[in-house]
Amino acid sequence: MMAANAVDIVEVGPRDGYQGIKPFIPTAAKIGLLKQLIAAGLKRVEIGSFVNAIALPQLADTSEILASCRDIPGIVPQVLVPNEKYGRLAIDSGSRFLTFVLSVSESHNRSNVRRSPLESTEEYRSLLAAMPEHIDMRLNIATAFDCPFDGRVAETDTIALLDLLVPMRLEVELCLCDTTGRASPDQVEGLFAACMARYPKVTRWALHAHDTYGLGLANVYSEWRQGVRVFDASYAGLGGCPFAPGATGNVATEDVAWMFRRMGISTGIDLDRLIPVACDGATILGATPGGRVRHALTAIDGSRK
Amino acid sequence: MMAANAVDIVEVGPRDGYQGIKPFIPTAAKIGLLKQLIAAGLKRVEIGSFVNAIALPQLADTSEILASCRDIPGIVPQVLVPNEKYGRLAIDSGSRFLTFVLSVSESHNRSNVRRSPLESTEEYRSLLAAMPEHIDMRLNIATAFDCPFDGRVAETDTIALLDLLVPMRLEVELCLCDTTGRASPDQVEGLFAACMARYPKVTRWALHAHDTYGLGLANVYSEWRQGVRVFDASYAGLGGCPFAPGATGNVATEDVAWMFRRMGISTGIDLDRLIPVACDGATILGATPGGRVRHALTAIDGSRK
Repeated sequence: MMAANAVDIVEVGPRDGYQGIKPFIPTAAKIGLLKQLIAAGLKRVEIGSFVNAIALPQLADTSEILASCRDIPGIVPQVLVPNEKYGRLAIDSGSRFLTFVLSVSESHNRSNVRRSPLESTEEYRSLLAAMPEHIDMRLNIATAFDCPFDGRVAETDTIALLDLLVPMRLEVELCLCDTTGRASPDQVEGLFAACMARYPKVTRWALHAHDTYGLGLANVYSEWRQGVRVFDASYAGLGGCPFAPGATGNVATEDVAWMFRRMGISTGIDLDRLIPVACDGATILGATPGGRVRHALTAIDGSRK
Repeated sequence: MMAANAVDIVEVGPRDGYQGIKPFIPTAAKIGLLKQLIAAGLKRVEIGSFVNAIALPQLADTSEILASCRDIPGIVPQVLVPNEKYGRLAIDSGSRFLTFVLSVSESHNRSNVRRSPLESTEEYRSLLAAMPEHIDMRLNIATAFDCPFDGRVAETDTIALLDLLVPMRLEVELCLCDTTGRASPDQVEGLFAACMARYPKVTRWALHAHDTYGLGLANVYSEWRQGVRVFDASYAGLGGCPFAPGATGNVATEDVAWMFRRMGISTGIDLDRLIPVACDGATILGATPGGRVRHALTAIDGSRK
């Protein structure tokens, strides 16, 4: 598994980053970028979602992308699913790593998957029952800290939902998601501390941080300090905020990789190879790129010329 | 003084932010922006430097700006000085709060003030001897973590310099500066912890964070957690990095204020009033603005229209 002094960065750009981009990114371009990301040292990539293609046309080619992964040595692809039906479809398409997502807040879950959180909880139960043993499971808890509609989410609400979900399967990577980017590091620390103490048998913990308000690395660092070793990030900071057009979303992979490099923590990422991919990603038509390190490092390179 | 659940944000835009901007910002415009910053709830402002006006023509009007502060109720202006001579000039011009700056790294100190760190240490001694009792003193330790020329600065080097400086005057606000923005939060934590333990009688500790690589808020948060309560910041993130043209510099005041607001910590800042000033600051000719919160909040406001 992971070295003691290492973290796993899960590249979510191809799913969370692309899904909000309107102009369809050609499948061949997506596969080309995926190969470049793996060549830069990334391994785990959320390559897409099995969802209603009418609702998310950008991700309609997920099964093609998944099939292409057979030709990308080293990649560990994961796909997001919102319910049992699409979970089965993902497994039938050859997925071995599923991300199931539901939101703590009723309004966000209904907006996202047209179900109440309790209905999604039952979908998760059905999916687990239908799942072969060898499938890895990531459980994404969206709006774990804050909801774009309802504002701050109480720690007790998130824990109440987890009390239902966690006992269903302990062999899971449990990811708390800062969907809005408004979770402050003290809040993130508080919830993770409470959850890690309450559910000590969960296999792994992960953080999905956004950087809309500049808190991405602050939250990643504070959770690293608490022992979290899996972090979602999106190359070029792809993934805007649907509720704040023009604002950035996911924390940038290159920013997270750069911080850990400064800390002497291994991510397996070769920044010299990742930065050009991030520069390419930032030019995708319709994208809202974010992140700082891409600018800082290319500015320095520019000044050396 | 400060409430228990409060922090002081020192606005350094008018000094650190403006100094790298080539086109001269008219003095009246500077004073107008200063008034707006105070109206937004800021109190402490580094309004300029007493330095060689040929080296830093942008700050040549510091004594005029200082004089104008008499008509700005509530402002606590501080001015930066690099040696005894300019320190005396600042005091003679009515300054009651001086920031003395020197760098740990020889190369940066020579580049910045044309002296060795030891020569600057003697300047500090002379300045303290010349200073009337009622003058407040901030001591800025530049390149405390990292140097643009030499890279990472060893903790032992910074402490060796502080061992000379600290005993000269304990009644000081001692500020460790991340001059390059490359200090990672674990490094910042380590040095502050060592210094706060070694010099327990220093009046106050402060952090000057840059955000060039996205680590501004991570470093502010980790020092807040260790008990630091004074943070430098620059509205609109003004203040580029002279060694990475086009890259951003100081952490943005509005980002710091926003994080602390989410944490329930008082800064005295009214963000609704600060954001428009930051938007104005970002349009200053020749400026390299930074920060996230300005974009995020104005994008949300835009989406509500």
